[in-house]
Amino acid sequence: MQSELDERAKWLSADGIKDARAQLPILYVEALPVRTNAAGKVVEIGLLLRAMPDGSISRALVSGRVLHGELVRDALIRHLEKDLGNLALPILPNSTLPVCVTEYFPDPQTSGFHDPRQHAVALSYLIPVQGDCSPSQASLDLAWLTPAEAIGSLTASEMTGGQHKVILTLLAHAGVV
Amino acid sequence: MQSELDERAKWLSADGIKDARAQLPILYVEALPVRTNAAGKVVEIGLLLRAMPDGSISRALVSGRVLHGELVRDALIRHLEKDLGNLALPILPNSTLPVCVTEYFPDPQTSGFHDPRQHAVALSYLIPVQGDCSPSQASLDLAWLTPAEAIGSLTASEMTGGQHKVILTLLAHAGVV
Amino acid sequence: MQSELDERAKWLSADGIKDARAQLPILYVEALPVRTNAAGKVVEIGLLLRAMPDGSISRALVSGRVLHGELVRDALIRHLEKDLGNLALPILPNSTLPVCVTEYFPDPQTSGFHDPRQHAVALSYLIPVQGDCSPSQASLDLAWLTPAEAIGSLTASEMTGGQHKVILTLLAHAGVV
Amino acid sequence: MQSELDERAKWLSADGIKDARAQLPILYVEALPVRTNAAGKVVEIGLLLRAMPDGSISRALVSGRVLHGELVRDALIRHLEKDLGNLALPILPNSTLPVCVTEYFPDPQTSGFHDPRQHAVALSYLIPVQGDCSPSQASLDLAWLTPAEAIGSLTASEMTGGQHKVILTLLAHAGVV
Repeated sequence: MQSELDERAKWLSADGIKDARAQLPILYVEALPVRTNAAGKVVEIGLLLRAMPDGSISRALVSGRVLHGELVRDALIRHLEKDLGNLALPILPNSTLPVCVTEYFPDPQTSGFHDPRQHAVALSYLIPVQGDCSPSQASLDLAWLTPAEAIGSLTASEMTGGQHKVILTLLAHAGVV
Repeated sequence: MQSELDERAKWLSADGIKDARAQLPILYVEALPVRTNAAGKVVEIGLLLRAMPDGSISRALVSGRVLHGELVRDALIRHLEKDLGNLALPILPNSTLPVCVTEYFPDPQTSGFHDPRQHAVALSYLIPVQGDCSPSQASLDLAWLTPAEAIGSLTASEMTGGQHKVILTLLAHAGVV
Repeated sequence: MQSELDERAKWLSADGIKDARAQLPILYVEALPVRTNAAGKVVEIGLLLRAMPDGSISRALVSGRVLHGELVRDALIRHLEKDLGNLALPILPNSTLPVCVTEYFPDPQTSGFHDPRQHAVALSYLIPVQGDCSPSQASLDLAWLTPAEAIGSLTASEMTGGQHKVILTLLAHAGVV
Repeated sequence: MQSELDERAKWLSADGIKDARAQLPILYVEALPVRTNAAGKVVEIGLLLRAMPDGSISRALVSGRVLHGELVRDALIRHLEKDLGNLALPILPNSTLPVCVTEYFPDPQTSGFHDPRQHAVALSYLIPVQGDCSPSQASLDLAWLTPAEAIGSLTASEMTGGQHKVILTLLAHAGVV
């Protein structure tokens, strides 16, 4: 099933996705991997370094499309594994309710969140990981920061598309701003 | 702007949407219109009567697609107006975070929520209305029920696709089950 | 620190709490322990069997007061350990935002949630456990049920104070009603 | 009923509350009054100016205790009316679930939220108001700010006890940071 979906994704990303992107909002999941202490409190957050749609090399969330026929939970697992490796041991939330809904538009003014390729609507989650994370595939690096570092101005300057505001929202929800 | 989106929606629903539906999950918003008392507590809920994708005439939520380029807030307003008329005076939420995310699949077993036409992912809201609601366009009727009636077995039997579970979730969140 | 709080709790419950209960709402945490599958979905829920404030022997949530000077997170950990033993390995949420706020009153009519001893306001959580749970101290038994069993009428008949509605709300939030 | 509760509050604040504050966490509600546009988006927020528990004159949220026997909804209404006058026309939320739970301690280090008088646990809400607000009773002034001004460093410097972080969390939830 998983590989069939991967196949379909590959095919669709090659060609058909271009048409779809001009016609429909594309559903995404995005996740901020975090390390928590025994009481559940966020102590570190993980940020990828990757080539972004706007051409920059930027700090970024785990992110990707939900495929046709795929559950949101399964899309989350697939993208966490794709970006963090299969030893990350993420703890999936017991509800699919995200922390926020993030609307990316080709026009940076529409919502303040920007994706030059498409209109994408992301369900944004904060996901604790218990294992070893290694940046994989399209990611160049994975850095662990404290919440204070993550919401500082330096990190904001290294992110694009408004993702530092997603991180701020996720960390505010977790009570660590 | 609105009419331009309407035009695009019409065109897309005529033809291109058929292809898109076979390739991508389609993003929806759905809303349960409610009347609240002065303290904000839900006292009545509104259910449409309409021809459903599965061919039945059923009780249903306000529901519809998010268009390309359209904000979730604007999609909510557009569909509330389409289904309840333009005198409904809905109070839009100050956050776009829904109460739940509902995943409809062509296969009724995948998630327990069923849409024979497509894989649709809905952001599900509970929306207070302050004005006069009149069923419009595709809706045959609008009935106002108490929360207790809405979660009773009779109403469940009049709904399809799992929407009675969405209503249960929305009303549980509102503290009136 | 923990034992100091326990001491204080003991003393307060002996005498001073009686006065406080007549003057102030008492802050509680309550938790539904659950087992989840690898995708985070709830597959089983745990219900205690205990002597309740109303004199009945009933199915119940993990529950208890937040002490003076105690963080909500620490109160959750303390009561989970008290009721499930110290091998339960609960996964504490990364946000202290509960799933719902439950207001118990001496008068069963005020809110539909009843505690004959006091006005108690509970922050209600759903907490995955990864280890071995054993009912301890005041609990007579711990039963594991499927979500469907948990929201069935039999279980409702075995619960008092409105707690079956709390369970319904927690499970609706988790998408398993 | 309301006046009876007010009487009880007065009496308790005179004397008994001192004992209770040393023994139990005190349950509060706090609210950020906001003005929204037709789409529900927050466009302005209201901040009181008042004498704070720490002796400073600071910008502050609407805030106050939940009384014994009082519903959370009724406490919210009472404090909104007390601080904003009875023409404010607040729109109470349809769920009592707050946006966040804020834990204030006499020791500023415990949680980062500080109340020198007591351990207080607040349910924190964002409340749209539709009418005229006038600072009343203990408040010296009410200022309306844009979200950007509200989360700026100047406003933060005018707030104490960590309340600027509560405002940041409420506005992040509303999608306007």
